[in-house]
Amino acid sequence: MELTTAAEQKSLLATLDPGKRTRLRRLLFEFGPGNGTLLFLPIDQGIEHGPRDFFPNPASKDPGYQFRLAAEAGYSAIACQIGLATKYYPDYAGQVPLILKVNGRTDVPPSDEALSTTNSTVEDAVRLGADAVGYTLYVGSPRQDADLRQLRDVRRDCDRFGMPLIIWAYPRGSAIEAKGGRDSFYAIDYAARLAMEMGADVVKLNMPKIDREKDREAPAPYNDLDVTQEDAIRQCVESAGRSLVVLSGGSKVDDDKLLEQTRFVMEAGGSGVIYGRNVWQREWSEAVEVIEQIKEIMLSSVTRIP
Amino acid sequence: MELTTAAEQKSLLATLDPGKRTRLRRLLFEFGPGNGTLLFLPIDQGIEHGPRDFFPNPASKDPGYQFRLAAEAGYSAIACQIGLATKYYPDYAGQVPLILKVNGRTDVPPSDEALSTTNSTVEDAVRLGADAVGYTLYVGSPRQDADLRQLRDVRRDCDRFGMPLIIWAYPRGSAIEAKGGRDSFYAIDYAARLAMEMGADVVKLNMPKIDREKDREAPAPYNDLDVTQEDAIRQCVESAGRSLVVLSGGSKVDDDKLLEQTRFVMEAGGSGVIYGRNVWQREWSEAVEVIEQIKEIMLSSVTRIP
Amino acid sequence: MELTTAAEQKSLLATLDPGKRTRLRRLLFEFGPGNGTLLFLPIDQGIEHGPRDFFPNPASKDPGYQFRLAAEAGYSAIACQIGLATKYYPDYAGQVPLILKVNGRTDVPPSDEALSTTNSTVEDAVRLGADAVGYTLYVGSPRQDADLRQLRDVRRDCDRFGMPLIIWAYPRGSAIEAKGGRDSFYAIDYAARLAMEMGADVVKLNMPKIDREKDREAPAPYNDLDVTQEDAIRQCVESAGRSLVVLSGGSKVDDDKLLEQTRFVMEAGGSGVIYGRNVWQREWSEAVEVIEQIKEIMLSSVTRIP
Amino acid sequence: MELTTAAEQKSLLATLDPGKRTRLRRLLFEFGPGNGTLLFLPIDQGIEHGPRDFFPNPASKDPGYQFRLAAEAGYSAIACQIGLATKYYPDYAGQVPLILKVNGRTDVPPSDEALSTTNSTVEDAVRLGADAVGYTLYVGSPRQDADLRQLRDVRRDCDRFGMPLIIWAYPRGSAIEAKGGRDSFYAIDYAARLAMEMGADVVKLNMPKIDREKDREAPAPYNDLDVTQEDAIRQCVESAGRSLVVLSGGSKVDDDKLLEQTRFVMEAGGSGVIYGRNVWQREWSEAVEVIEQIKEIMLSSVTRIP
Amino acid sequence: MELTTAAEQKSLLATLDPGKRTRLRRLLFEFGPGNGTLLFLPIDQGIEHGPRDFFPNPASKDPGYQFRLAAEAGYSAIACQIGLATKYYPDYAGQVPLILKVNGRTDVPPSDEALSTTNSTVEDAVRLGADAVGYTLYVGSPRQDADLRQLRDVRRDCDRFGMPLIIWAYPRGSAIEAKGGRDSFYAIDYAARLAMEMGADVVKLNMPKIDREKDREAPAPYNDLDVTQEDAIRQCVESAGRSLVVLSGGSKVDDDKLLEQTRFVMEAGGSGVIYGRNVWQREWSEAVEVIEQIKEIMLSSVTRIP
Repeated sequence: MELTTAAEQKSLLATLDPGKRTRLRRLLFEFGPGNGTLLFLPIDQGIEHGPRDFFPNPASKDPGYQFRLAAEAGYSAIACQIGLATKYYPDYAGQVPLILKVNGRTDVPPSDEALSTTNSTVEDAVRLGADAVGYTLYVGSPRQDADLRQLRDVRRDCDRFGMPLIIWAYPRGSAIEAKGGRDSFYAIDYAARLAMEMGADVVKLNMPKIDREKDREAPAPYNDLDVTQEDAIRQCVESAGRSLVVLSGGSKVDDDKLLEQTRFVMEAGGSGVIYGRNVWQREWSEAVEVIEQIKEIMLSSVTRIP
Repeated sequence: MELTTAAEQKSLLATLDPGKRTRLRRLLFEFGPGNGTLLFLPIDQGIEHGPRDFFPNPASKDPGYQFRLAAEAGYSAIACQIGLATKYYPDYAGQVPLILKVNGRTDVPPSDEALSTTNSTVEDAVRLGADAVGYTLYVGSPRQDADLRQLRDVRRDCDRFGMPLIIWAYPRGSAIEAKGGRDSFYAIDYAARLAMEMGADVVKLNMPKIDREKDREAPAPYNDLDVTQEDAIRQCVESAGRSLVVLSGGSKVDDDKLLEQTRFVMEAGGSGVIYGRNVWQREWSEAVEVIEQIKEIMLSSVTRIP
Repeated sequence: MELTTAAEQKSLLATLDPGKRTRLRRLLFEFGPGNGTLLFLPIDQGIEHGPRDFFPNPASKDPGYQFRLAAEAGYSAIACQIGLATKYYPDYAGQVPLILKVNGRTDVPPSDEALSTTNSTVEDAVRLGADAVGYTLYVGSPRQDADLRQLRDVRRDCDRFGMPLIIWAYPRGSAIEAKGGRDSFYAIDYAARLAMEMGADVVKLNMPKIDREKDREAPAPYNDLDVTQEDAIRQCVESAGRSLVVLSGGSKVDDDKLLEQTRFVMEAGGSGVIYGRNVWQREWSEAVEVIEQIKEIMLSSVTRIP
Repeated sequence: MELTTAAEQKSLLATLDPGKRTRLRRLLFEFGPGNGTLLFLPIDQGIEHGPRDFFPNPASKDPGYQFRLAAEAGYSAIACQIGLATKYYPDYAGQVPLILKVNGRTDVPPSDEALSTTNSTVEDAVRLGADAVGYTLYVGSPRQDADLRQLRDVRRDCDRFGMPLIIWAYPRGSAIEAKGGRDSFYAIDYAARLAMEMGADVVKLNMPKIDREKDREAPAPYNDLDVTQEDAIRQCVESAGRSLVVLSGGSKVDDDKLLEQTRFVMEAGGSGVIYGRNVWQREWSEAVEVIEQIKEIMLSSVTRIP
Repeated sequence: MELTTAAEQKSLLATLDPGKRTRLRRLLFEFGPGNGTLLFLPIDQGIEHGPRDFFPNPASKDPGYQFRLAAEAGYSAIACQIGLATKYYPDYAGQVPLILKVNGRTDVPPSDEALSTTNSTVEDAVRLGADAVGYTLYVGSPRQDADLRQLRDVRRDCDRFGMPLIIWAYPRGSAIEAKGGRDSFYAIDYAARLAMEMGADVVKLNMPKIDREKDREAPAPYNDLDVTQEDAIRQCVESAGRSLVVLSGGSKVDDDKLLEQTRFVMEAGGSGVIYGRNVWQREWSEAVEVIEQIKEIMLSSVTRIP
């Protein structure tokens, strides 16, 4: 099985209108690594998980910690919800681009019928000087009907205001668990394609995991494939087509693993990474150091023509 | 039982306002076979089934493959969702007409209470230079109340902008399964009529299948009819009245079967076919060749007065 | 038990604003029998039941059959949904008044929690030159909350545009079945009153049926009444107050029965009848003939002051 | 336990804006008893119960009966839904004030999750020359979320148009039945307070009933109170604060009981009564006579400063 | 585990636009203790619990009692729903600031899927001269999707009108009960953070309670922490970041306890307290006296730079 290479597929910027192009270029070339790649810092765990993620590094409980880190260590952008954007971003306005995440939910109730409703708007993003909007799409949830309709309005407003749309494409819900689970190659691959078809300019994916046992419950041909994780990542990136792909690290892993997977992502055609807990659950100096190492890897990949 | 012939029933264009007439004529006479018939290429499987449909022909994973095929082999139009329309159609603008499908869903959750919500709008279609809008109606679903109300707004906007409305009329849901199933003559015949009554200019149907066993669960007189598939197709076409009918091929079948059913459709009064996987799951040259054969059959039918 | 006679109650036109009065007069005096009575032809069975109602007379499958019949045999109006109104009514515009039915549903799913959502609008009716709007209200359905709220908007738009509102008042749903069923005197009587209180100008009712066994489950005093069907009809007509009442024939009955019940309706104070399948499930000449007989009976009643 | 007396609490008119004050004064001083008390005639039973309430006095089936009674016997106002207001009120316009009830439901489905949706609007009330709007709030229903939100919009429009808001505050639903039932002192007392807090100018309550057995299921201290019905009425009136309170009679009781409870209400600080079936289920002369007796009691209470 | 001190985190006013700043300064410096702290009187118990809370002090049933207390004893503001704001606040306008609570619910139905819908609007608050808006957010409820979306609109209107937003952040619902309960440190801590992230200017929290047994059901690390209640309060205050925090007293406790917890709150970095039943369930003189003692404690803390 041979696919056209990712490099051939990519030429996103050329398809964008001036507003989206201006803002996305800022993320790709003016901040972060600066070579057409993306390094995002997410600070939405306070909503999605509660304050428990801040205990390993108490300093991280103050949102100022993440904002300062994003600005001083040179991230491409910081992603957060309306409250932080309103009360903390002003101190760093212009020093690091803002991605306003417009929906979210606590993880208190179960995720069987997950739906993440919007708590802010694209117009809020414009008003706050953001350079992109983030939306969490629960791919395959029984409530996808409400999710896709809601996304329609966010997407439309992004088109209207020239605001790049970043979709956090998360397989979720009882039905996906019955078909191999949220981390399977099947699930992530579907999520990548769906996000692109729904109008994402950038797609945020979790790393697909290969689990022969669970994969048997996925639809053909995923139930009978023999792929490595690296290969799966590459194929997910291709499924996103002209949409740029950033992959996330999830919960904290050791340094070697973190740098290795960064290399994987870049080699697979990904446009960047989104590292939160892996970075800000560290002391300041340690955090700054690992960011430098990550950026080195990203810069060592050839300059991208996104 | 004798019905008026389809030929007598048809005279759609004469009933349309200038906007719809202009756009629909483009599909019927300026592109595709050009003799008043319709040959559509759907590329919405990435949403409806996920990337799994692209594995038989990996090149098809790149949406550019389908767009190029539609443009170069001379389809009447290509049908896709907002993401592809935004990021891929620009390269082929003017070379092949666009049908914007405004709703969709993944097949991850079960279809018992299927509802496909809109992820784009008729106004998007206008903005993108589309010549028609596609809408999936789940005929007989327990959630038909939400479906019909949603379709009302899409239909109203089509009337407002002079945009032809193509309804993908799919029997679906637990209730239809209890009455003979989604592919029965009863189900498809009902779907054809409902779509027409809801204001479709063109109705997209799946081929009805005759299954004496299951048909017994359908309401009278369908539970006791003795019809051939060819006859069933003809009657479904008639049920759509002045709405034009295109029939789909579904999953890939062999060439003889494909060409035979094309002939069936045209003889039964259908206005055309919509072939996706049957075409783009082939290598380029093989795909181009089969399209030529399909078009020959369509052209061999007398010129239609749609 | 003595009630004021229906004749005393009736003086609807005098209460209507100019728009409603103009349009309703057209139905009462310019078309159909012309003596202040109403003879409606419904062609919404294609949605409500599917094409199966057309099998007894295949010619009826072509909507042109019903439109021609309504125009040539002289009905007061024809009632249909948006699709037929758009694609078939233009050929008969001005030859027979149009009632646009703005909601509908397939009978594929069960009716336990019936709700019929709108698929067109009063504004559509104005645009199409209709002289009235039809709305199906499922009286007593567990989803009456959504139904009444939806009717509020239709009624408000009718007031706004001076469009007469005809309510198809159908008892329906699990709760009504538990209280004697949808055809009981209790159910139809309640339906007549509710429709009038919700602002109907004309109420369409099914014939109440007397079934001593089932009536025992109805609330007092209906569970212990000793009335004939003729008496029940009369009382239902009175319950509708100043709203005009038309009664329907339902599925096809023999000619004597049809003419007899027409006489019942007129003597009971009804303003007319709505006959669909009883008429168009016949060959053309037979259909025209029976319509003549029906009209004779309607004309033999004294001229009405609606 | 001692409360401030109702007399001290009352001074509603002084807090109202000109529009509400003008209209409410009309009800309090220009019509009905005219001494600052309220005598309302409700004719919404046709919706809430169906025509069965009209059987005891067949003449009452014609809505003209109630309108004439309200006008000629001198009620403060008549309360009805949009249909009657449109088709019957015009004959009595200016002869008796109109309260437009904007929501309602049939009692066919069970009340476990009762919700009464709006079938007309405050704007309708303005257009029809009404002097107040009536809204049924199902206190404690599991669907109170939808109810309170709906009331918000009605209340806002009342503020906008200077239209007095009368809340029919009815404890209803499975949860209230589990806590002593809809007629308990606990339930009615809660209803009185909630209606006032939601912005009612006038609250319509049913008579609380003392039932030691069922009251034990109510929350403390209601489960252990030793109050008479008269005392309970007084306390419910106080719970409504500055909102005026009218109490209803419910189903027909004998004359002595009716006049006695009228006296109770007035002595307890109530501003009036709302008597429907107790009045119009009588022959005309008998009805007129009992109204005279009721008004005498109301006039024998000192003039109120509402 | 060491966190940055609350004092370092706080500098809310500097981040606010002129409208919010003007109004919030009024609460912090012109009314109440006046040293940058907040003393709120809530009178929403009539909706949330019914009149039962007024029995211990019957005078409190008259809303004028609480308004007079708030004004004369010098509270920072009084919080109530639209009915009281409209009918009682006018007498005290300008004498004590108003917080309009825009949502509420009765406690009659169970709280498993709690949702509190809005019964008034931010525009109402502007019109009534309020200085802040209050919103109850049920953190972790299965219906958080509707809650967060509703809050989005309230928050947006607060931004639009420069109206401070106070979020009553209440963990509630079946899912939170399964993870240690609504009063656990885990639950309150999550609530504090969520409210801040949703755009609260002030967060109202209940006191966290330490219950080793139930805490084991909370997610790590909360299931295994060894904290005092004082420490838990401090951490919850920190989780609210730049949002000011006021803590509530809940049901009536004895005076020593009340004053002690006031001291706790202020030492933990809280900006104030919200005491309702603890104050107004007392006779007038006793109430005034305890308010004086509370204010002394609040004034004995250094002047705050909110």
